Amino acid sequence: MKANKVLFIGGDMRQIRAVNRIAECGIETAVFGFEDTEGKKLSECVNILYDIRDIYDSYDVIILPLPYTIDGETINISGLKYKINVKDFLSKLSQKSIIFAGKSDKMIMKIAEDYELKIIDYFDREELQILNAIPTAEGAIQIAMEETSFTIHSSKCLVIGNGRIGAILSKMLNGIGADVTVAARKQKDRAKVFSLGMKSISMVELYEKISEFDIIFNTAPNLILDSDMLMKSRRSVLIIDLASKPGGVDFETARKMGIKVIWALSLPGKVAPDTAGDIIGKTILNIIEEVEVKK
Amino acid sequence: MKANKVLFIGGDMRQIRAVNRIAECGIETAVFGFEDTEGKKLSECVNILYDIRDIYDSYDVIILPLPYTIDGETINISGLKYKINVKDFLSKLSQKSIIFAGKSDKMIMKIAEDYELKIIDYFDREELQILNAIPTAEGAIQIAMEETSFTIHSSKCLVIGNGRIGAILSKMLNGIGADVTVAARKQKDRAKVFSLGMKSISMVELYEKISEFDIIFNTAPNLILDSDMLMKSRRSVLIIDLASKPGGVDFETARKMGIKVIWALSLPGKVAPDTAGDIIGKTILNIIEEVEVKK
Amino acid sequence: MKANKVLFIGGDMRQIRAVNRIAECGIETAVFGFEDTEGKKLSECVNILYDIRDIYDSYDVIILPLPYTIDGETINISGLKYKINVKDFLSKLSQKSIIFAGKSDKMIMKIAEDYELKIIDYFDREELQILNAIPTAEGAIQIAMEETSFTIHSSKCLVIGNGRIGAILSKMLNGIGADVTVAARKQKDRAKVFSLGMKSISMVELYEKISEFDIIFNTAPNLILDSDMLMKSRRSVLIIDLASKPGGVDFETARKMGIKVIWALSLPGKVAPDTAGDIIGKTILNIIEEVEVKK
Amino acid sequence: MKANKVLFIGGDMRQIRAVNRIAECGIETAVFGFEDTEGKKLSECVNILYDIRDIYDSYDVIILPLPYTIDGETINISGLKYKINVKDFLSKLSQKSIIFAGKSDKMIMKIAEDYELKIIDYFDREELQILNAIPTAEGAIQIAMEETSFTIHSSKCLVIGNGRIGAILSKMLNGIGADVTVAARKQKDRAKVFSLGMKSISMVELYEKISEFDIIFNTAPNLILDSDMLMKSRRSVLIIDLASKPGGVDFETARKMGIKVIWALSLPGKVAPDTAGDIIGKTILNIIEEVEVKK
Repeated sequence: MKANKVLFIGGDMRQIRAVNRIAECGIETAVFGFEDTEGKKLSECVNILYDIRDIYDSYDVIILPLPYTIDGETINISGLKYKINVKDFLSKLSQKSIIFAGKSDKMIMKIAEDYELKIIDYFDREELQILNAIPTAEGAIQIAMEETSFTIHSSKCLVIGNGRIGAILSKMLNGIGADVTVAARKQKDRAKVFSLGMKSISMVELYEKISEFDIIFNTAPNLILDSDMLMKSRRSVLIIDLASKPGGVDFETARKMGIKVIWALSLPGKVAPDTAGDIIGKTILNIIEEVEVKK
Repeated sequence: MKANKVLFIGGDMRQIRAVNRIAECGIETAVFGFEDTEGKKLSECVNILYDIRDIYDSYDVIILPLPYTIDGETINISGLKYKINVKDFLSKLSQKSIIFAGKSDKMIMKIAEDYELKIIDYFDREELQILNAIPTAEGAIQIAMEETSFTIHSSKCLVIGNGRIGAILSKMLNGIGADVTVAARKQKDRAKVFSLGMKSISMVELYEKISEFDIIFNTAPNLILDSDMLMKSRRSVLIIDLASKPGGVDFETARKMGIKVIWALSLPGKVAPDTAGDIIGKTILNIIEEVEVKK
Repeated sequence: MKANKVLFIGGDMRQIRAVNRIAECGIETAVFGFEDTEGKKLSECVNILYDIRDIYDSYDVIILPLPYTIDGETINISGLKYKINVKDFLSKLSQKSIIFAGKSDKMIMKIAEDYELKIIDYFDREELQILNAIPTAEGAIQIAMEETSFTIHSSKCLVIGNGRIGAILSKMLNGIGADVTVAARKQKDRAKVFSLGMKSISMVELYEKISEFDIIFNTAPNLILDSDMLMKSRRSVLIIDLASKPGGVDFETARKMGIKVIWALSLPGKVAPDTAGDIIGKTILNIIEEVEVKK
Repeated sequence: MKANKVLFIGGDMRQIRAVNRIAECGIETAVFGFEDTEGKKLSECVNILYDIRDIYDSYDVIILPLPYTIDGETINISGLKYKINVKDFLSKLSQKSIIFAGKSDKMIMKIAEDYELKIIDYFDREELQILNAIPTAEGAIQIAMEETSFTIHSSKCLVIGNGRIGAILSKMLNGIGADVTVAARKQKDRAKVFSLGMKSISMVELYEKISEFDIIFNTAPNLILDSDMLMKSRRSVLIIDLASKPGGVDFETARKMGIKVIWALSLPGKVAPDTAGDIIGKTILNIIEEVEVKK
């Protein structure tokens, strides 16, 4: 059976967009713990719960925030006066419910196992990752525009890495007229970049050419921009690091050299929360399409 | 003979870039009235004049700022403790000098006629206008990114006008994945837009479709976005007006309707002063290449 | 009054498409002298005239072929057993009719003056010229693909001229991954090319760099590729000349040097007659929209 | 140790380009069985063997053609008067040699195992597959241009599949102004297409929309265009099938319906043999860089 009763627990601006997308598809949708919900624009057909006891009703799908927890103990809800413990909450749920959690970790997987619950991490879905690369790339370009006194057009831009973010970022930079080079370790990635009409270099070549670039975008999760690389870069270069912790830049050396580095994390929610919410909504809908609900 | 002695009088950050470009080409270059010149980076080969009497030496080309005057009386120099009257200054120049002035007007043309001086408006050069469209378009996109909670990618963007700015702006928006429509009055402009793979509409069609757009960029120097058009637009639309005074939007109606309008003027100097300066420098070089200097 | 009775006299495959476009807009449309009309697909609502006397009925607009004459004397109709003299024909028309002629010349203009007829050359319309540049550019690319043993992608392509054809051709080449350089005489044209993210060179620079190119497309109506230029080119270069007579290449020198030159004229009708016909139809509709008919 | 003595056995025009690329890198290169070698342009530094006994000398790498065999028994050499049996040949080689074979199969892998030889299939390398997608896509576009009476620009093109060929083909079509839709089964592939600014549809949606398309390019290795799909297509559609055997179209139904289908296989060697040869050469060089040779 298809899921037709869905509950969102906790959420920011993005989650409200997601709620509305689900509700507009004719799925019975309730929310709990949406901070200051009145001020935002939940669809009229969304059922807003105020009493915590109502959340234990039978829902086919229960959707926790992205990330589902910040403190590692309670659900990530900022607007409530009390906290909801993840384990307590899950322990009270029916095994018929499927839990969608953003950035699930060992803790929640262990609890799910103990209580025989099914957990799906919607943040882990490939289409979400691909779609999220769009606002990430656009946010990176916005930062580059704000932080430079020259145009991106005809500037020499380096994109390190040709994964999801690197691929769309280099395409967008090219689309506004930048002179783009992509540094990638694998032959096949360089072949792809070449086929798309851009320049590609290996990491060895990068070391020789790094001084040419006006702006460097790092998308690789490794320390590529170590002190050796930085020492060969221009002091005037702008580095935008999009790699999650621990980042891809030797920040200390950059600071000493006076190179400006901007470590830009979680861009989708910051620069385009509506788009980020639509992406979450679309992904949740895709998952709902695929899962079978027990009745 | 080719010009080989050039004097810049007054200038902002852009003009410093321009000075350096000229100086790097081996032309003897002097500056006067560059506010706080020490803090910025004039090439070492540039001769900095401190005594106003030195500016009446024989220069082949004398380059006034952009715009050459703000108050309609004195030269646009912000860093001096005294003012230089345009007429006084020009009256003392040799007729062998050619004057380059940014945004020349009737006043300076009249003075030039009286004293038989040759004036060239470098801001009026077509290549400068075309090149300036690049930072203008980029600045407009930056504003759009900053002012929206969604991505430009896949948003519905309208560009009104297909002149210099409209053409490059629509290309760049397309290049980052926007869904671009260009509104233009002339069949030939719509044919051009179509040939470049984008959608085009006439002004009559615009009236029918204006409610579809998320972001509207106006580049036309007429009041296209009058109250009728605005009444049919989304309240959530973002309007970025790039038309010079009096602008292309009924600002009063937009304000009443709660539509956000940003009137973005002189973007090149604001968002990309280095690029704007390079463009001035390149244009001045082009003119110097073309003019003959009397000896 | 708007034209609502239209007669097409003579035409090839393109003209049949044009006829159908007009007829589908609800305009009463008749044709005469369409060779072998039965075999092609005229809309059912088109009235086919077989008796030459019927063509002197009162039509608001009479549309002659493109070109209206080949021999300089009779109308360009290939399927009839007899010829229709241009002057005789025009002399019998009502002065209320407007004549649309493709590639009008002094002869027809003189006749029109004598008989006080209004002639409009639809081939001369700017939107037709712009739209025709699309099949011309595509045809040039098709020839380049057929005549080379390497891909256009990543080949070094030179486009001489940045007019209507040059602009769309360089964009398309760029779109399939070629390494495009545009040679243009005017600073403003080079500025435009630069703004669109491609390389541009002056004619002086071209002389220095011409040996770099794998494929040269000429769109300029002057003899740019003279023997000096050819002597500096690669013998293996492919030259596609899109300039109308007398062409832009010293064909004799090229032949002696063994350089392959393809002089590709009238591409729209050859490589994409349907598209060419749609363009004619659209342009005729535009003109009909604009003209007033006397009643 | 790096390979520094290489022998090519058998080859067509592509292989000659590959030989030259290797030789130009300073690697000692010999060839045997190159049909009509004199007429083509082997680098002067290439050593041409005429006596079959010479091929058993000690070479670090021995490169067989693409495909290495056609008849499943002998090496694919067209110019010799006698045949070389694959097994006989391999049995006489030193175990120090590494064999590069195009399209290796079970037979050669078995022989290699028996004689303890190392076989590497260069056709199987991911960078070769990616690079080969370029001439394949261009060849498909050339066919589309040749077989239609309208322009690719603004025509409605469907690309089935978003693998290596689909991705570059849709980009190129978009680059010349086509209205491109990509049909893909996986959410993540559709997300990728969307991120690149093109339309994507699922296979279910394809069934609803297939009648809209002017040209269909199939790159998927499954029978997507079965009789149901064909029945819903336009009779005037052009189908270009790029899938290897058994192909992705119900050819019989298409034939009965009068739909034109072109099954275009092995395009790189046909439409751009020089580029195809460069790709082979580059890939072989990459492999040589990576392998260690026993001494």
